[in-house]
Amino acid sequence: MFPSFNIQSPEVAIEADLQKKIDFKTKPAGSLGQLEALALQLGKIQNTLTPNVSKPQMIVFAADHGVVAQGVSLFPQEVTPQMVMNFLMGGAAVSVFCKQHNVPLRVVDTGVAADLEAHPLLGQRKVAFASKDFSIEAAMSAEESLSALQAGLDEADLAIDAGKNLLMFGEMGIGNTCVSSCMMSALLGISPEDSAGRGTGLDQEGVSHKAQVIKSSLERAEQETGQAVADWTAETLAQQVGGFEILAIAGAMLRSAERNTAFVVDGFICSVALLFAEKVNPNVLSFAVFSHQSNEQAHKHLLSQFKAQPLLSLELRLGEGSGGILAYPLINSACVFINEMASFESAGVSDAK
Amino acid sequence: MFPSFNIQSPEVAIEADLQKKIDFKTKPAGSLGQLEALALQLGKIQNTLTPNVSKPQMIVFAADHGVVAQGVSLFPQEVTPQMVMNFLMGGAAVSVFCKQHNVPLRVVDTGVAADLEAHPLLGQRKVAFASKDFSIEAAMSAEESLSALQAGLDEADLAIDAGKNLLMFGEMGIGNTCVSSCMMSALLGISPEDSAGRGTGLDQEGVSHKAQVIKSSLERAEQETGQAVADWTAETLAQQVGGFEILAIAGAMLRSAERNTAFVVDGFICSVALLFAEKVNPNVLSFAVFSHQSNEQAHKHLLSQFKAQPLLSLELRLGEGSGGILAYPLINSACVFINEMASFESAGVSDAK
Repeated sequence: MFPSFNIQSPEVAIEADLQKKIDFKTKPAGSLGQLEALALQLGKIQNTLTPNVSKPQMIVFAADHGVVAQGVSLFPQEVTPQMVMNFLMGGAAVSVFCKQHNVPLRVVDTGVAADLEAHPLLGQRKVAFASKDFSIEAAMSAEESLSALQAGLDEADLAIDAGKNLLMFGEMGIGNTCVSSCMMSALLGISPEDSAGRGTGLDQEGVSHKAQVIKSSLERAEQETGQAVADWTAETLAQQVGGFEILAIAGAMLRSAERNTAFVVDGFICSVALLFAEKVNPNVLSFAVFSHQSNEQAHKHLLSQFKAQPLLSLELRLGEGSGGILAYPLINSACVFINEMASFESAGVSDAK
Repeated sequence: MFPSFNIQSPEVAIEADLQKKIDFKTKPAGSLGQLEALALQLGKIQNTLTPNVSKPQMIVFAADHGVVAQGVSLFPQEVTPQMVMNFLMGGAAVSVFCKQHNVPLRVVDTGVAADLEAHPLLGQRKVAFASKDFSIEAAMSAEESLSALQAGLDEADLAIDAGKNLLMFGEMGIGNTCVSSCMMSALLGISPEDSAGRGTGLDQEGVSHKAQVIKSSLERAEQETGQAVADWTAETLAQQVGGFEILAIAGAMLRSAERNTAFVVDGFICSVALLFAEKVNPNVLSFAVFSHQSNEQAHKHLLSQFKAQPLLSLELRLGEGSGGILAYPLINSACVFINEMASFESAGVSDAK
């Protein structure tokens, strides 16, 4: 069994005062649009009139996936450790954007299929050398699924204990859009045709093949568990078709929420991690800041499921946390305006007639 | 007559090399979406494989408008100089966001209806104490329209001479959404019902009144000039229904393009300034970076007219350049990724199969 999480709803008592503070800023009421809603959300989460995200932390969780043996990705599995090295050396998209915004980056190995050398930015929490190929057997044992979740709990604790006030999550793992689509199909009861997308650049044939692999994997798992997908617990789902880095992200989200800390949701894969976390404890949702809507087919569906209004829609489909870090300046702007703008009174500006 | 502008199309010779550089970065091809298109645009404008927007300048042009006498804004005219003071003192939205991103802010008075005290951040280029009420007479003389345009030319020159490599424009002027809607109706031949919007927060009745004022103003002007709106030159349009700050922004855009410098288009009013600049010289368009789609009704129509894909869509309706400055980190990210990301080869990462 997964541990239970004690997640309180963000403070509503402060909402009226936050709204008043926002409305008295020198601007037409509501004219900062989504930034106003974000300032309200952050103020409620932090229970303060002066929300602050000046100490962010980006954590990229990496793992490999046995199901890549079924040819569901354009890139070979060796790219996972290669990209982890690229993150650590500063050459990846998330690396250069983190540097641009002065956001510290940490990479956590939760199941890369290769030995990784120690590095100051690398967290070693390897559960196994890749999950198993879930098209032919369960992706992981109960113990492994717990370890993956725990990796996220521990990483969130580490960051929050160090004073971080905004957690941003990313992922790396060749094949993990396939795993995410499979988890999404299982969690929402939608067909693999609706959950599978282009990933790193599959053509229509590749997408159809991916959907077929997901379909037969879910059938295999239903047979093995003797349960219809709709009846699965979070634990069963994780073991049958989960991915280590996705479970770790879900764990980090749950712990972040438990500790009243906002976290940033990147693209499709992180959104599926949130969907999984929501199955574990629905209160986690209020702590999520949605950074962007990706170009992955199923992501739009997921975001509307969450009733989310993401900050960006730049046709990104890269993952790594790249959308999250690109949205960080906007999240910061929500704090900057509520903390630093003058009020009509303080600036001697006349309000609307 | 307005001066003529010698605007060259951005360099196409370098396009293939730019695309190759973008495609060899360690990411799936095309996966950075609009940022890739932006890197390409900036590289072509600057004719370099290493585009750079590290020296931005925000210039907010301010002016008043006689037509406010017709009750087209929720806010009184005295708010224009009050907000100029607020910009200078650092309390406005554009001020705090410029500070957040370390972007220098300059405010240029092109026609505020009040004397403004000297301030290091204030450019004094007042054409008149507000334009005239264009519902009863021409907004300005030929000489005044030239002076307003010239204010923008001079400001762009000043910034580019100082080494700025990205110009961002904003505006302040109570009533200027009405002026912009009127100019848009005249430029595109669309009805005032389709060009008029809520501005700083009008209700439906207020919007209808604004549309009515625009309709009768255009009728007045057609009678006075003896010409249908569709036959007006840019000069006639400016004199009849222009606004000083809007003409100044158009001038700054034209000079910026003439000097191969990208500029950032804020919301509705700045987009109308671009539409006017396009009438003067259509080549100006290639130098425009569209920051956001505002919540102003007519802005969407304008952006599709330009075939623009703005970077943000946050339901902003504030003006001041606030959308432009919020998009600045993304514009910078387009340069950061093309300049700093590793290539597949340099990082030793395997490319797609």
